[in-house]
Amino acid sequence: MPPENDVARLVVSCRDRHGIVAAISSTLADLGANIVTSAQHSTDPENGMFFLRLEFHLDGLAACLPQVEERLADVAEQFAMTWRLSLANRRKRVAIFVSKQDHCLFDLLFRWQRSELPMEVDCVISNHPNQEVAVTALGVPYHHLPVTRETKAGAEQAALDLLAGRVDLVILARYMQILSPEFLGAIGAPVINIHHSFLPAFVGQNPYARAYERGVKLIGATAHYATPDLDEGPIIEQDVERVWHVHTAADLTRVGRDIERLVLARAVRWHLEDRVLVHGNRTVVFLS
Amino acid sequence: MPPENDVARLVVSCRDRHGIVAAISSTLADLGANIVTSAQHSTDPENGMFFLRLEFHLDGLAACLPQVEERLADVAEQFAMTWRLSLANRRKRVAIFVSKQDHCLFDLLFRWQRSELPMEVDCVISNHPNQEVAVTALGVPYHHLPVTRETKAGAEQAALDLLAGRVDLVILARYMQILSPEFLGAIGAPVINIHHSFLPAFVGQNPYARAYERGVKLIGATAHYATPDLDEGPIIEQDVERVWHVHTAADLTRVGRDIERLVLARAVRWHLEDRVLVHGNRTVVFLS
Amino acid sequence: MPPENDVARLVVSCRDRHGIVAAISSTLADLGANIVTSAQHSTDPENGMFFLRLEFHLDGLAACLPQVEERLADVAEQFAMTWRLSLANRRKRVAIFVSKQDHCLFDLLFRWQRSELPMEVDCVISNHPNQEVAVTALGVPYHHLPVTRETKAGAEQAALDLLAGRVDLVILARYMQILSPEFLGAIGAPVINIHHSFLPAFVGQNPYARAYERGVKLIGATAHYATPDLDEGPIIEQDVERVWHVHTAADLTRVGRDIERLVLARAVRWHLEDRVLVHGNRTVVFLS
Amino acid sequence: MPPENDVARLVVSCRDRHGIVAAISSTLADLGANIVTSAQHSTDPENGMFFLRLEFHLDGLAACLPQVEERLADVAEQFAMTWRLSLANRRKRVAIFVSKQDHCLFDLLFRWQRSELPMEVDCVISNHPNQEVAVTALGVPYHHLPVTRETKAGAEQAALDLLAGRVDLVILARYMQILSPEFLGAIGAPVINIHHSFLPAFVGQNPYARAYERGVKLIGATAHYATPDLDEGPIIEQDVERVWHVHTAADLTRVGRDIERLVLARAVRWHLEDRVLVHGNRTVVFLS
Repeated sequence: MPPENDVARLVVSCRDRHGIVAAISSTLADLGANIVTSAQHSTDPENGMFFLRLEFHLDGLAACLPQVEERLADVAEQFAMTWRLSLANRRKRVAIFVSKQDHCLFDLLFRWQRSELPMEVDCVISNHPNQEVAVTALGVPYHHLPVTRETKAGAEQAALDLLAGRVDLVILARYMQILSPEFLGAIGAPVINIHHSFLPAFVGQNPYARAYERGVKLIGATAHYATPDLDEGPIIEQDVERVWHVHTAADLTRVGRDIERLVLARAVRWHLEDRVLVHGNRTVVFLS
Repeated sequence: MPPENDVARLVVSCRDRHGIVAAISSTLADLGANIVTSAQHSTDPENGMFFLRLEFHLDGLAACLPQVEERLADVAEQFAMTWRLSLANRRKRVAIFVSKQDHCLFDLLFRWQRSELPMEVDCVISNHPNQEVAVTALGVPYHHLPVTRETKAGAEQAALDLLAGRVDLVILARYMQILSPEFLGAIGAPVINIHHSFLPAFVGQNPYARAYERGVKLIGATAHYATPDLDEGPIIEQDVERVWHVHTAADLTRVGRDIERLVLARAVRWHLEDRVLVHGNRTVVFLS
Repeated sequence: MPPENDVARLVVSCRDRHGIVAAISSTLADLGANIVTSAQHSTDPENGMFFLRLEFHLDGLAACLPQVEERLADVAEQFAMTWRLSLANRRKRVAIFVSKQDHCLFDLLFRWQRSELPMEVDCVISNHPNQEVAVTALGVPYHHLPVTRETKAGAEQAALDLLAGRVDLVILARYMQILSPEFLGAIGAPVINIHHSFLPAFVGQNPYARAYERGVKLIGATAHYATPDLDEGPIIEQDVERVWHVHTAADLTRVGRDIERLVLARAVRWHLEDRVLVHGNRTVVFLS
Repeated sequence: MPPENDVARLVVSCRDRHGIVAAISSTLADLGANIVTSAQHSTDPENGMFFLRLEFHLDGLAACLPQVEERLADVAEQFAMTWRLSLANRRKRVAIFVSKQDHCLFDLLFRWQRSELPMEVDCVISNHPNQEVAVTALGVPYHHLPVTRETKAGAEQAALDLLAGRVDLVILARYMQILSPEFLGAIGAPVINIHHSFLPAFVGQNPYARAYERGVKLIGATAHYATPDLDEGPIIEQDVERVWHVHTAADLTRVGRDIERLVLARAVRWHLEDRVLVHGNRTVVFLS
């Protein structure tokens, strides 16, 4: 995955109406840019929401970026767009939060090392010291911030001090502490979480044990953006694996780990590539 | 699927302890029977629950059935077993309940016509007249029992009068009325239901619309035994299909129909072949 | 699925180069049309292939269709596009070919009856008389064209006489005769076929028996456009189902039927909605 | 996964006939053993093949093992059984072969470190030096045995010298050299291989590039026992992942890596737990 110079990604959402695509594409053509890929979605052409993701190539993009942004800002204002522009060769900077269970953490780091995930890893933050050796051996800073009921506010502040202004994304890779609305409001970056999911759903403690008691036939995982409403933010990706009566609660937990790894890695990749647009509690995920 | 003469299925559950399999297999050997297939499961060999399903062949089985049952009853008493014995060539007799949505009904009837489901169809009961022509054209009796709040008890009684002592299984193939605990207690046959399922779960009205609002990425269906605790009985089978932001609520409903058909047909087949054992709120499904 | 008046679908493929989208969208804007949905794909912006599918709404479309086509033809000529325009409310007319196995046939007809597939069924053609009663009961003409080695050319000619100029699509719903290159050349409509598929692949007779012998763990089906190179045309859709050692060859065949139904129905739906573009031996399937 | 003392696994295959289960279970009862789990399969009770896997518990098993084996040998002789007995607390010793692609290697080692795979890792053997640092950091010996056309026989002999009599299983975790029939004959342990698989199948070089050209919609992987007939040994496990036209050949390769990891890990786990029985070119996999 070599850095793609001179390529930018434009992500747009606004009320749908006539002329949006024409306005953007003619502006880009005017600037001499070539649209490489483009995907769009409308919930309803009559006053629904419109979503667009496109990649364009423009020789010497970095140099003329301010000019491009200015022109796009004009179009955006005209259509009351929410928009962002990212350079494809500017990797997003992420912090990974983890607790004792480290399968998601090391799966992400393994993919990062092998250039499967286009990101820079700023640091790993954990409320346990367990993975410090293995993480620092990969050249990634590791911050151990223990959390008890008494120290939670302090630990969150310490994390904010470490991350403020430094990261574009926070990944909760099986971080078993509930982040406060204050933290989520102050972190200034989207937060992706992974959690188990079952049919039917089990809320609360020991979900795998309860799924076993209920005799579920599918074990699932859901990756979503974290919101103050825990485990209820916009869903990015979900998947399941089949289980049988032969699986013990421990087996369900093990199978769940495999799905969690895959689902979180897909959600993170799509976010890093600016493929996920949020509208209310839904996501639009442009795979093309 | 020709009738398998001289083959019986024995299904057993009891507390696990030493010697269960030896007692059963030596009893069958004594009777001259040959075990064709056998599957067993124990939740814990130390005082857990033990489950067994086996098929055996015995020349002239029909004639000596009372003797076989007597010998098995002795073993069953010794181990305090719950057990049942069914002849493989005796097809179970089923009644199918349906409302306006008929995709599950006709899927079951199609499979039945083509000998995919080893059952006799006693009748179809509906609270709507819609499928009468198509069902009776297949030679299956159709009873239209309208249900309003006022007539519900009477309609349930009419269904009981039609089915009492006649059916081995009731299939709710998208029957949109809630059966009363009284009906479930009086019907004298297991009842299999199919319902949608989502991650996360949506209880109540318009689940597909709410799943759409929530932006789920998977649509599922669950087949389960009906209990007075609606939609909460022991799960027999579940499956899911992937959806995207491009799917409207109507699309989700359509995709859901396909999964419902498959999941219900699998659950019914397994029940008809005596593959499903219930323990508390869990099922053991012996596919082999 | 009510007919969507005033909506057309435009499908385009050509060499990728600057300005394609701008040219089309400004032409449509000029005509007063509103783009409802749009999806595009490029194999490589530097001289790769470009694919586009868009739906647009234009008041009074039917009346001004010639003018729209003329304007689009100008753009098409400029970029050497392959293109087609279809009215969303003009359902495609299909002929379904079938042999003795009828699960795909009746699955398609069931969906058609319930408005899941936006098509008109011109007729069913079979080399066996088996389904005549059930098909004609649905109001669909049924032509029995027996095929032997000697009569094959005549039967194909009879089918051509029946269908020539009447159908937009031919569906081979488990039609077990190999259509000659001459027929495929003369039919004047795309042909969609469904066949089993396995890992590894088994070519030739009795594939399910051979898959059983090989102990495969997955049973699959592939829907593809038929080409003179049998079972090798562009793939539209594939899916699989898991099987175990407990499945007999007959079980594999039964499981295969379920996947074939689903895969063929999806492929047909996508074709009917003009979502499938062919390039060489690949397809681009725009689900959005 | 603590070592399970006093538990043994018995795996049996033979021609099916009356009395097999009774003979084994009464022998075990005689010895004072308690059957913990048992699964069996018969391809045909009339002279088909019979397969059995059972776990039994016997106090002080290690001490009386010779006596147990002697008694079972008597039964085995009577029925001409192929059989083996393993102690559940004796972990199998494995050697892992790898080439440059290391996703399967590190996935196995990660699971091993976290007690997901009950095995001892004897060593890693590679024809490249790439993973030496990371592997030895985990405390696992790493042998770099370069292979060229000229040195192949020597490298295989060196591997045999390293492994002879030391390992119970060889895992080819994306080892890109073809092992000679001589090596497979001399290694004295089963060999599990993982390879990609597609519908349709692509034999030979650059399968992912060819799958891309063909526009496949599913990417798969197959784990199987290696035999002299390359990539054609008995299949243990298979799985697939869905792909679209938007996936480049590089994407297919990446998706393939995820499936390869999962499929190989499942196959290895099942083998380590003595769940896989081979008969001809088929496997019986007892998950319960």
